Amino acid sequence: MKAIQVGLLGLGTVGTGVVKIVEGHQEDLSNQVGSPISIAQILVKDRTKARGVSIDPAKLTEDAWDIVRNPNIDVIVEVMGGISTTKDYILEALERGKHVVTANKDLMALHGQEILAKAREKGCDVLYEASVAGGIPIIRTLVEGFSSDRITKIMGIVNGTTNYILTKMSQEGAAYAEVLKEAQELGYAEADPTSDVEGLDAARKMTILSSLGFRANVSLEDVSAAGISGVSQLDIRYAKRLGYEVKLLGIAERQDDMISVSVQPTMIKASHPIASVNGVFNAVYVHGEAVGETMFYGAGAGELPTATSIVADLVAVVKNMKLGVNGRQAQLPYNVVKLKTDEQIASKFFLLLHVEDRAGVLAQIAQVFSNCDVSIESVMQPSAPYKSSTEIIIITHQASKAAMNQVMQAFSGLSAVREIKSVYRVEG
Amino acid sequence: MKAIQVGLLGLGTVGTGVVKIVEGHQEDLSNQVGSPISIAQILVKDRTKARGVSIDPAKLTEDAWDIVRNPNIDVIVEVMGGISTTKDYILEALERGKHVVTANKDLMALHGQEILAKAREKGCDVLYEASVAGGIPIIRTLVEGFSSDRITKIMGIVNGTTNYILTKMSQEGAAYAEVLKEAQELGYAEADPTSDVEGLDAARKMTILSSLGFRANVSLEDVSAAGISGVSQLDIRYAKRLGYEVKLLGIAERQDDMISVSVQPTMIKASHPIASVNGVFNAVYVHGEAVGETMFYGAGAGELPTATSIVADLVAVVKNMKLGVNGRQAQLPYNVVKLKTDEQIASKFFLLLHVEDRAGVLAQIAQVFSNCDVSIESVMQPSAPYKSSTEIIIITHQASKAAMNQVMQAFSGLSAVREIKSVYRVEG
Repeated sequence: MKAIQVGLLGLGTVGTGVVKIVEGHQEDLSNQVGSPISIAQILVKDRTKARGVSIDPAKLTEDAWDIVRNPNIDVIVEVMGGISTTKDYILEALERGKHVVTANKDLMALHGQEILAKAREKGCDVLYEASVAGGIPIIRTLVEGFSSDRITKIMGIVNGTTNYILTKMSQEGAAYAEVLKEAQELGYAEADPTSDVEGLDAARKMTILSSLGFRANVSLEDVSAAGISGVSQLDIRYAKRLGYEVKLLGIAERQDDMISVSVQPTMIKASHPIASVNGVFNAVYVHGEAVGETMFYGAGAGELPTATSIVADLVAVVKNMKLGVNGRQAQLPYNVVKLKTDEQIASKFFLLLHVEDRAGVLAQIAQVFSNCDVSIESVMQPSAPYKSSTEIIIITHQASKAAMNQVMQAFSGLSAVREIKSVYRVEG
Repeated sequence: MKAIQVGLLGLGTVGTGVVKIVEGHQEDLSNQVGSPISIAQILVKDRTKARGVSIDPAKLTEDAWDIVRNPNIDVIVEVMGGISTTKDYILEALERGKHVVTANKDLMALHGQEILAKAREKGCDVLYEASVAGGIPIIRTLVEGFSSDRITKIMGIVNGTTNYILTKMSQEGAAYAEVLKEAQELGYAEADPTSDVEGLDAARKMTILSSLGFRANVSLEDVSAAGISGVSQLDIRYAKRLGYEVKLLGIAERQDDMISVSVQPTMIKASHPIASVNGVFNAVYVHGEAVGETMFYGAGAGELPTATSIVADLVAVVKNMKLGVNGRQAQLPYNVVKLKTDEQIASKFFLLLHVEDRAGVLAQIAQVFSNCDVSIESVMQPSAPYKSSTEIIIITHQASKAAMNQVMQAFSGLSAVREIKSVYRVEG
């Protein structure tokens, strides 16, 4: 039986994993799809470099167009990363009737709609399970598993680097800079960690998850992102005392046709299932009107977990080829949604204030909250850590982001408040 | 556009949930599948009974054959339960070219292969996501999400009743009989709780999960089952002291072509993600060679969570109808596997012994383990709770079930051991 010919764009960590799985599980795969799967051609940066897998050198090329234009290739697996050139390759491959499996979250977050539209036009599949949360089949779950439900909330730990850093800070009491350095040495964080630690990587993934979960066209600009570089040991210690963990959470919410999508360090109640997701692991918590609470947990990155998702997508593409139904199962977004304004986005908040230690200060602070119509759930005043000043920790009831901004503004004009040390969203 | 006609067998809790979701999400569903979905006919026990949903009485029938033989019905949704008669209905429906969605774990565990073979013969779909772990899309995940991987272990909390009971026993220190009674009053446990508390319900679900996960033909007789009726407060307290929780776990393991599938109360390390799954929630932990550790968490039962899975299956059936590919995606088991013998099944074990409190007893006990080639990881001897006797808690290293049986046998001939109070498998 004729083998399915795969062109692999990229032979880094994940690409190598794809080769290993396709070769190691050849019999299993063939049993499932009814014909062998062959990796026929591979794009590499340097043909002469030594590899972690043994590959016939005749399969290697340094020119992506060789693969994209190769008429024998049925499916392109893209694990080279990058945005603009990679998009050109993928659009050209689709134009030529090739199906595409990609792990490229940046590309899908920025140009997903254009790529999916081209795929639909050409009757081709574009699958991208590996682009979010590595080995967790969350895209399939959102599209198929919850097809009958209305998803109201998605909360994700979708960046392993930052979760590793926050876990270490929480468990070992280490400082942010110190743990970041260690993560860089271990290869968990990049030399330039901005994209991870400032929440940009997570924002791209939340763009993809919220588009699918809400069946709407969410673009990257719709997602507000804040990172973890400001998270201090003090924040984490107070969070623990109050029964919370600090996690970088992507949070997407929907009410009727209004949505909000954001990424920020968040205080999450320790008893919430997502609070105990530690280290480089990822998890996506999904709340549906009918299904209630669910959570999906697993490795967010890594050679083999990510390659598992890519090869599962490849199996799906080949099954569709056998059935002759490629490009016909893709879900186009059909909900038109509006972004919530700051008046409409509500949550509890945690505040850590550095204030003067004298009678009447708490009353002044409480008055500010009251003026802004924000009610307080609890106040904690630890025994004075400084000479003439102290710290106050406040957790509010549900309040709008706009009201909280007013509170901040009022504090900046209040001499008794020396510094607003931290403000966190609170969940769970 | 012509509506898809659904015949619903059963209008209990879950059936009512299906009606609610199909009617409440009509627009969403129609957007996804391209035509309306209509519940055309419903089997009920008593046509005159008052219902939780408003239904045109003309749709109700008390005779299942009315629905099964109705030429206008495209898809049968079976939520009536039962085995032998229900099987007849389903086989007849398939014979007549109707697709089937079922939540019936008993039926699928006992007659799944026969039903799937008939479906394949007739080009029909049989989907049964709701039969295991209610709202968690675990079947879809095993079949599609991990299609490229080789699954080596599945551990599931797949029975909500027993997890509720064990959680209450662990969190509130209540006795088994007391919590069971409370669960019965709350409707979480049946008047005759045997199927739940003796692990039979979980065994049926593990039959389904292991068949799909290992892509093999696992039958119910292959699954050994033990329940929770013997779990005592003493066991739970010692487990906690050693850093474990007691959970009723279904455990399916595969090594090459050898498998074992069992259900038993198990001591699971408190830090393992499945250890903190509490109350009526379900979770399935899956370990794959490539993907590593993953876990899927959610409601295991309930009107709407279960109905979510059923309607998601219905959406999948209708999509396949539109594509003309029904019955062609079903995965037949292609791995021929053998059951492991007791010599080949290995785990750590926890033992709680009631022994005489005199010098030399521990040495005798240690000698028994040594004779049977079982090595000990830790021994705990709490300060003597009785007058002339005491308790010893032992955790072994990995040992075969056969070796542990030998140990038990030897203890029964040892006068210093008054009673073997408990033996648990240990995981995590």
